[in-house]
Amino acid sequence: MIKEALAAIDQFTGSLRQQGLLLPVWFEQRRVMMLDQTALPFRRDILPLDTVEKVAEAIVAMKVRGSGSIASTVAYGLLLAGVRSGGDPSQLREAAALLRRARPTAAAPLKAIDLITAKVSGLQGEELVVALQRAVIEFVEAQLADEKGTGKAGAELMRDGMTMLTHCHAGALAGVGYGGRTLSVVRQAMERGYKIKVIACETRPYLQGARITAWEFQQLGIPVILITDNMAGFCLQRRMADIIIVGSDRVAANGDVANKVGTYMLALAAADNDVPFYVATSRFNIDLSTPTGGQIPIEMRDADEVLYLGTQRIAPEGVGALYPSFDVTPARLVRGLITPLGVVSPPYEANLARLFGA
Amino acid sequence: MIKEALAAIDQFTGSLRQQGLLLPVWFEQRRVMMLDQTALPFRRDILPLDTVEKVAEAIVAMKVRGSGSIASTVAYGLLLAGVRSGGDPSQLREAAALLRRARPTAAAPLKAIDLITAKVSGLQGEELVVALQRAVIEFVEAQLADEKGTGKAGAELMRDGMTMLTHCHAGALAGVGYGGRTLSVVRQAMERGYKIKVIACETRPYLQGARITAWEFQQLGIPVILITDNMAGFCLQRRMADIIIVGSDRVAANGDVANKVGTYMLALAAADNDVPFYVATSRFNIDLSTPTGGQIPIEMRDADEVLYLGTQRIAPEGVGALYPSFDVTPARLVRGLITPLGVVSPPYEANLARLFGA
Repeated sequence: MIKEALAAIDQFTGSLRQQGLLLPVWFEQRRVMMLDQTALPFRRDILPLDTVEKVAEAIVAMKVRGSGSIASTVAYGLLLAGVRSGGDPSQLREAAALLRRARPTAAAPLKAIDLITAKVSGLQGEELVVALQRAVIEFVEAQLADEKGTGKAGAELMRDGMTMLTHCHAGALAGVGYGGRTLSVVRQAMERGYKIKVIACETRPYLQGARITAWEFQQLGIPVILITDNMAGFCLQRRMADIIIVGSDRVAANGDVANKVGTYMLALAAADNDVPFYVATSRFNIDLSTPTGGQIPIEMRDADEVLYLGTQRIAPEGVGALYPSFDVTPARLVRGLITPLGVVSPPYEANLARLFGA
Repeated sequence: MIKEALAAIDQFTGSLRQQGLLLPVWFEQRRVMMLDQTALPFRRDILPLDTVEKVAEAIVAMKVRGSGSIASTVAYGLLLAGVRSGGDPSQLREAAALLRRARPTAAAPLKAIDLITAKVSGLQGEELVVALQRAVIEFVEAQLADEKGTGKAGAELMRDGMTMLTHCHAGALAGVGYGGRTLSVVRQAMERGYKIKVIACETRPYLQGARITAWEFQQLGIPVILITDNMAGFCLQRRMADIIIVGSDRVAANGDVANKVGTYMLALAAADNDVPFYVATSRFNIDLSTPTGGQIPIEMRDADEVLYLGTQRIAPEGVGALYPSFDVTPARLVRGLITPLGVVSPPYEANLARLFGA
């Protein structure tokens, strides 16, 4: 039975490949396989991860990033724990605890753990592995459906010839591989025959915008203009963008949005220039159990990541640094939430509860 | 007489050194000498510049940057043209035109050219050189007095234990060498016995904040925390800074401020969190002939400076980029203008005209 479960997951991976997806992570031959996003776009290194510890470390080291792809990663990480332990529930619990700590801000990975572990609760041995395999595939498929749904809803906001400005990366490699959130919107707009242009903020300190967003949009043949994060205000003052769409790591019940640090300042510039600011999200990042953005834990990362660019130090010795990975954009600055169930407008508390409440 | 003029300027340079100033540029033995700011803080290269063309190129290449130090540079560049040509008015005119184009956004360099050329108008030969030398020293001395005056006025806003957040670099190397504008404020606050902390935005793409601001404050023994530009909003949401002070490249008659790109987004975040946002300036950057920020020319630099970090490319080939060097912060976001004549409050149009009108 375990053998059949492993065959099923390998077959699932094959089916994702056949759909032409750009996979950030997948399960194959008893291992979690990961495209190292820190090496993009200049190298495409594949990391084979055969322990849950290595999976958690890869998340912490940002080898995989973006809430959707991290959610797939923790799902596959749980499967790895189940398979390697022969279906030992205690080892699965330990794996869940380890993976839960790896990226605390994003909601989708936490929801993946909750959903998947609930489905194998009370099981052990082969039964656990088989149920786990089904739950993991179900979760990844649900994420993929969300990506397409969010893209379709967002395309309703687009018009031919529009320029979209975005921050950080919420494309294929931040999701299951179709287009994540922002790239899904552009893919669906292109299917309508629209020509779209993109302005990408480089997104210091990790440069996800320069390295990954610019590269992914370029693969689609979309013209991309790169700016440093601090230039977005200038571009909006000059009306160089018609719409701003960013991804999200967590949307609170009141519509506050945690996303890559810098999103809040971008939203302020959007509001000041009356450029519509939208957040594209999946159902797994909408967290009605978090009342407001104030309750979202913000991951503080190693300050060295600010003091160095790659291996090159940019500030003199003795200077300190701070690295909050995310910030919270208040709901009042968000024109709408692009979700797989359509574009949600304010008041968010009522509308999110109605659409996504239990 | 030319010999005496050259001795006078060398003596002036010596007197600046004796005051313990950190000189970004000086005149010595018939050459303009410049500390290469692109190599800081890891190397201290001195560039000897013996033609006006080299001086203009050094400004364009940002070997010297910051409106005050560029203003000193063009002043010394004019002196170089006068000395090397033996006081030929036509060569001085050509030099003025060349230097005028090198950095169009900042007002002080343009004012330096206007003031100095007016004082030698109608002269030639030795008389021109001598008058030029006097006018150059007079201008640099006036800038130095402004630095100290702005610092003194700004210190009135400081309190013991405050944390000041700043963007880009408006310190000693952006002025004559005392403390430019922001560092002058902190120096004067320290003279009152206040302990001040600083949060410095790194200031992409040139990283003036990481490389120069952090280094200068560190020299004074001030604790410095470095952040990427997009983290300022997070810091202000968390009330990590009590006051924001930035420099300026030009202040229009209505109080709009052109300063390093990113200043506008920082001012928005300050306003949204009710953190006081001040602009420190000199009389030479207040340009009453420019009615509003909309008339300030914004220098667009080579897009490669965004696509590369040092020699390392950060985005895939084929991706375009945009590099506006400055942006305009509307006067409505500015709590006050720190000037050598005191802190100017709104309404700026009336108050600036009263203090700085002809």
